[in-house]
Amino acid sequence: MSIAIVDVIRAKRDGLELSPEQIDFAIDAYTKGLVADEQISALLMAIYFQGMQPAELARWTTAMIDSGKRSDLSSLPKPTVDKHSTGGVGDKVTLPLAPLVAACGAIVPQLSGRGLGHTGGTLDKLEAIPGWRAALSTEEYLRQLHEVGAVVCAAGDDLAPADRKLYALRDVTGTVESIPLIASSIMSKKIAEGAAGLVLDVKVGSGAFMKDVDRARTLAETMVEIGGAAGVHTVALLTAMDRPLGRAVGNALEVAESLEVLAGGGPADVVELTVLLAREMLALAGLSDVDPAIALWDGRAMDVWRAMIAAQGGDPAAALPVAGEIQIVPAPASGTLTGLDAYAVGVAAWRLGAGRARKEDPVSAVAGVLLRAEIGDEVKAGQPLLELHTDDPDRLPAAMAALDGAVSIDGPEVPLPLVVDRVG
Amino acid sequence: MSIAIVDVIRAKRDGLELSPEQIDFAIDAYTKGLVADEQISALLMAIYFQGMQPAELARWTTAMIDSGKRSDLSSLPKPTVDKHSTGGVGDKVTLPLAPLVAACGAIVPQLSGRGLGHTGGTLDKLEAIPGWRAALSTEEYLRQLHEVGAVVCAAGDDLAPADRKLYALRDVTGTVESIPLIASSIMSKKIAEGAAGLVLDVKVGSGAFMKDVDRARTLAETMVEIGGAAGVHTVALLTAMDRPLGRAVGNALEVAESLEVLAGGGPADVVELTVLLAREMLALAGLSDVDPAIALWDGRAMDVWRAMIAAQGGDPAAALPVAGEIQIVPAPASGTLTGLDAYAVGVAAWRLGAGRARKEDPVSAVAGVLLRAEIGDEVKAGQPLLELHTDDPDRLPAAMAALDGAVSIDGPEVPLPLVVDRVG
Repeated sequence: MSIAIVDVIRAKRDGLELSPEQIDFAIDAYTKGLVADEQISALLMAIYFQGMQPAELARWTTAMIDSGKRSDLSSLPKPTVDKHSTGGVGDKVTLPLAPLVAACGAIVPQLSGRGLGHTGGTLDKLEAIPGWRAALSTEEYLRQLHEVGAVVCAAGDDLAPADRKLYALRDVTGTVESIPLIASSIMSKKIAEGAAGLVLDVKVGSGAFMKDVDRARTLAETMVEIGGAAGVHTVALLTAMDRPLGRAVGNALEVAESLEVLAGGGPADVVELTVLLAREMLALAGLSDVDPAIALWDGRAMDVWRAMIAAQGGDPAAALPVAGEIQIVPAPASGTLTGLDAYAVGVAAWRLGAGRARKEDPVSAVAGVLLRAEIGDEVKAGQPLLELHTDDPDRLPAAMAALDGAVSIDGPEVPLPLVVDRVG
Repeated sequence: MSIAIVDVIRAKRDGLELSPEQIDFAIDAYTKGLVADEQISALLMAIYFQGMQPAELARWTTAMIDSGKRSDLSSLPKPTVDKHSTGGVGDKVTLPLAPLVAACGAIVPQLSGRGLGHTGGTLDKLEAIPGWRAALSTEEYLRQLHEVGAVVCAAGDDLAPADRKLYALRDVTGTVESIPLIASSIMSKKIAEGAAGLVLDVKVGSGAFMKDVDRARTLAETMVEIGGAAGVHTVALLTAMDRPLGRAVGNALEVAESLEVLAGGGPADVVELTVLLAREMLALAGLSDVDPAIALWDGRAMDVWRAMIAAQGGDPAAALPVAGEIQIVPAPASGTLTGLDAYAVGVAAWRLGAGRARKEDPVSAVAGVLLRAEIGDEVKAGQPLLELHTDDPDRLPAAMAALDGAVSIDGPEVPLPLVVDRVG
């Protein structure tokens, strides 16, 4: 029996559960350009309002995976496990985490993305390293997984192409903010990547896509369920994004902070989250007896980092680029620093040049914001609180404007705990 | 300030009231092709779920009117008033009604449409009359209103073009069944037509677009409110469409029945509804002291009919075409005829050739269904109950199949009263 897309739209609009055949038809025909954008956008808006049942969502995700190729990593000699963050301000954790987990005996095959808006992208950060390249051939990718144990690189065109097309459509039709659509978008790519285990870092707070804990938990539960249905062991942590993670926000600035962590130092929250996520990943890989903290202190994670960067053309010993202009933002009053709004800092870094408004925009490696104090610190009026880094001084006023009201001294804010919850 | 359509979509999605500027922008930019179909279909689906507030809907309707030209009929020498039916099976009331109201002293400027699916269109019916043409120039139209007092003709391209474009989009995106969108679609065209008063015949029952009384009442109230906001005096009757109206369903068959009514005869329900609607129209025109029933009996309505048909090239004295093939459907049992499903009869007539599945399909003038008994009549098993008229005997089996289960003898059905409610 042939399926008419208008009947699929009507069924979802009326709150019915779509059949596997209807889902497969919609995704396949849309990927091939056989149904119109205006029909799929109506379907997406109906999904926004009616949601999807677990079985529907599992099938929808599978159909998106099947629009491209699912990698087979079963020939690798060690267990594979990956991490995905829903995106935050200063979230550079992938950089120390991937080599750390590889140093502890698992393989980390991470296909990653670029930043958009106020959140940074892992590839943008790594591209601040002279010579490093994001694009690998399949052969290079598999060889690096064998030889180094960790890859962070750009996804190929055959990774869930339906998701790319759907995401572009959602972006212009007001259908981004739907939990089943967000969950299936993330999970289709992560499942297609082929890792056997997956740890999700679902960010919560002003700087995150999910501003409140309940929605973040629902997203986490939805993704864990999709992973389970697809045979990928999935665990999620809900972590704080009411303030930036660590002290560095911006591409080269975050690489530098990641190197501190790999050298056994770095801000406590970045170290703690990196080690926590590493433990979760190692547990999924059957390596719960390995303590990742040791591999940070003894330099093994740094060794894997150097090999990982070098394998992708980067010079791990090269100096990172630095900004031509640094403006200091002083503390507005004396007291305890109780709030430093993650979203405001993210927008400031974006306006300084660290982020992009459209996919095709370039980003600055050097731009960003450096925190000179952390939440809970005592500060004195006038002491340096933030550094704004940029090569383009004309960008400073807009960045300053973004920070208006972002700093709170002796305020009523209660910061989120670093780890808010765990699902899985 | 410039408006981004994605913000308009998101606002409606989130249940906010759109501003006049947002509404004007969306309709104007869409009509001009400056925003994409996939964005407007997402907006329409959001409207499906979130509805529209009265002020929004009034503005939305005005914006659709302003996408084209609103006729100015103020130079006409008598009050103008029109009727619109939401469509039913056997609903030929416009044919006797327009000349009747004109005979009573008002002017009836009706821009009408063609049938789609199981409901017939007034223009299709009139085209069964040899020589009659639906298309008039603006000059011909105005001259006929002056000289005859009634026109039923096709709408020009400049009548609410936004509605034409939106309706085509709704049809393929599952967004037809939204009361504000239905109401604004109907009312934009009727208000643009320029009549000072408007009587709406909102059909209820299986053969109508609105199957249940509550939704039909909501639609009626919504349209009356839109009319009021636009300065058009509007009244709505909710009328029965659980069974066909009258005994004739099909183009030439309905013209013939209309002629019986204009000659002072015809089925009681058609006569009663025609007179009731005429009274409502005359009241809006300030002519409540005129009794339209008299103008049916004394032949004045027939005189206007003849002038109206002749003015559009039709020969009011010409014989109507008749079908080459007539098949009798006998009563399946003896007893009281308690049900004759309007939808089933409409589909049967459509399958016999009276209706079209797509806008561009031709229709047969002669095809249709003639009822040989009415609800409440006593029938004997085997007596002729229906006549199926067609020029194409191959169509008879599918028409018979549509009628399966449509006839109920001594059943539990309680027919709707002819007039279910009045709003206004």
